[in-house]
Amino acid sequence: MATTLDLRTLQWLSKEYHDMNGTHYETLDKPPSALEFSRLVHISRPVVIKGFEVHALERWTDEYLIERMGDRKISIAVTPNGRADAITPGPDGKLYFVEPHIQQMTMHNFLLSLAPNTEKMSWPAENQEICYLQSQNGNMYTSQFFESSPDQERQSELSEFEPLKADVPSEIPWCSQAFDRSPDAVNLWIGDSRSVTSIHSGSDPYENIYTVIRGTKHFTLLPPTDGWYLQERIYPHATYTRPSPVSTLTTTPSPLTTSPIRWSSILNPHLPDTLPREAHPMHISLKAGETLYLPAGWWHHVRQGLDENFSNAERGEELKEEKTIAVNWWYDFEGRGMGWVWLNLLRSGDVPYGNTT
Amino acid sequence: MATTLDLRTLQWLSKEYHDMNGTHYETLDKPPSALEFSRLVHISRPVVIKGFEVHALERWTDEYLIERMGDRKISIAVTPNGRADAITPGPDGKLYFVEPHIQQMTMHNFLLSLAPNTEKMSWPAENQEICYLQSQNGNMYTSQFFESSPDQERQSELSEFEPLKADVPSEIPWCSQAFDRSPDAVNLWIGDSRSVTSIHSGSDPYENIYTVIRGTKHFTLLPPTDGWYLQERIYPHATYTRPSPVSTLTTTPSPLTTSPIRWSSILNPHLPDTLPREAHPMHISLKAGETLYLPAGWWHHVRQGLDENFSNAERGEELKEEKTIAVNWWYDFEGRGMGWVWLNLLRSGDVPYGNTT
Repeated sequence: MATTLDLRTLQWLSKEYHDMNGTHYETLDKPPSALEFSRLVHISRPVVIKGFEVHALERWTDEYLIERMGDRKISIAVTPNGRADAITPGPDGKLYFVEPHIQQMTMHNFLLSLAPNTEKMSWPAENQEICYLQSQNGNMYTSQFFESSPDQERQSELSEFEPLKADVPSEIPWCSQAFDRSPDAVNLWIGDSRSVTSIHSGSDPYENIYTVIRGTKHFTLLPPTDGWYLQERIYPHATYTRPSPVSTLTTTPSPLTTSPIRWSSILNPHLPDTLPREAHPMHISLKAGETLYLPAGWWHHVRQGLDENFSNAERGEELKEEKTIAVNWWYDFEGRGMGWVWLNLLRSGDVPYGNTT
Repeated sequence: MATTLDLRTLQWLSKEYHDMNGTHYETLDKPPSALEFSRLVHISRPVVIKGFEVHALERWTDEYLIERMGDRKISIAVTPNGRADAITPGPDGKLYFVEPHIQQMTMHNFLLSLAPNTEKMSWPAENQEICYLQSQNGNMYTSQFFESSPDQERQSELSEFEPLKADVPSEIPWCSQAFDRSPDAVNLWIGDSRSVTSIHSGSDPYENIYTVIRGTKHFTLLPPTDGWYLQERIYPHATYTRPSPVSTLTTTPSPLTTSPIRWSSILNPHLPDTLPREAHPMHISLKAGETLYLPAGWWHHVRQGLDENFSNAERGEELKEEKTIAVNWWYDFEGRGMGWVWLNLLRSGDVPYGNTT
């Protein structure tokens, strides 16, 4: 049995939700208690939280990261354009959902590739590969970490970032108590303004807690009720590959046995006039030391560092190129109750293929 | 702008919600902490809570109630059939939503009218008026109580049950903390098995905490996603009136200027075969000392005391006629987030008039 909502109902939901909630978001001056956070989870709207202290905030200079990580190899997403996991034209001109090339390198070499070590103004428009640490697989902590005894954990697959674990708590007490569970994954993200995360909400929705350690993250958010403005389409899957160690990256379509990917066809929802006027995007810029509660099912497009579209100047800040480092904690979404059902309903419609017009 | 969900979507929602949640309800051996309760509110499913102690539980014998209330007059709902606020045929054979006649009497006279003082077996089928204390207007505490200073409160309209207030807390700490607000109303309910509350969910949904003080309450519950099985219709409004002090009650249609009432056309959803097989009613019987969390938007039909349809015998209990006394706390529903929008969507369809076939 399947269902779909008609356009009139989708419009009604978007308008009703906006009428009830606007585009306001709350900012807390200090982390909430578990009870306060539980109430916020029930409301399920983005919240900016200041004052959540993790050791990484004082410790993570380039020098520290390089020294602690030493010769270890870490998995870095490499793309020709900074758009990993995004819709991009392939060699045949058709649009693909393209996953990054994954390359192993040392922290030292990785950080060298990022601003401000690179001369931004001299980046050529093409043939300049862009690195982004965005492995999203629980690169700091996985659910296995919480399920294992310390001994078992030590023997199981170790994090690539084992030497940095002491700087990032495996879980956030007020979150774990409110959600009544440990995180499913804790991820480290390091990149610069050339890398962008295209808009998505996650087919397996997570409750997301996102803390900026250095630099700035710029979120463009849409509530679940506005998802249909993003015009999801079905795209064939591809990966950036490097045929030989000295080749440039090429887009390699995956075998037809690889499932196609459902993804928004709106590539730059943070730019004016890319969304219908009726949509209600929220723009939240998160500075170092600030944490975002990004509720399950919310659509998010994420940029970072220097951003001409985000006027630092208006806030009296100097524009500067910088690395952005962030950590996020993913908690499983509460499966009981209505939450899943509503999110499924909102995405229950048939989605057309992206390359047919 | 209005919308409506088609039958296919309504069926899908009902099935999906049931597939995710079943008809299970949790029973807690002791009251939850505020944090635990906040999590339960987020899930928004019925929960039975044992061990919530209020003084009324030990104190409220008939003798105590009569002694404390003395000569005060209290407002009692009187009907010929035990169905206050229910769909009933009027003198013209048409169906009406009929409100009870409200009569002032002492607690002593009111309790005398109830089982087991009355000889149940000798109740005539007709012309036997049935009394139910069900005023639902915050008869114990109103929101005014929480907004006023003690002095102001004393001068404002006093509760009819002022002498019983010491036995019922004005708010429940773990609820007020979880909801982050005081109750909007606290109500006292006293009746016997002849009185029934017809199924409804409330157009202004409340979070409801319901504690049985004496006797038994039998709830038939349906989740918000099953509401459409209840086939709401629009009915004209009427009131039971007593033309002269010695008359029997008659159904008096209200002036046409009185808004008609939207109500379920299924009168006995607790009985087998009254609902479609696809509906998923839950049956919960609550004994003295037990508390039900009845989440906002859940449909509820409520019976009490002796009930041939509820097999006390199966639980090894003797069938006996008894008074049932309960207290409930209504807390305003959280208006932020999705909750309101979804409940409105589920009831957004056009509803036909009840007297046209």
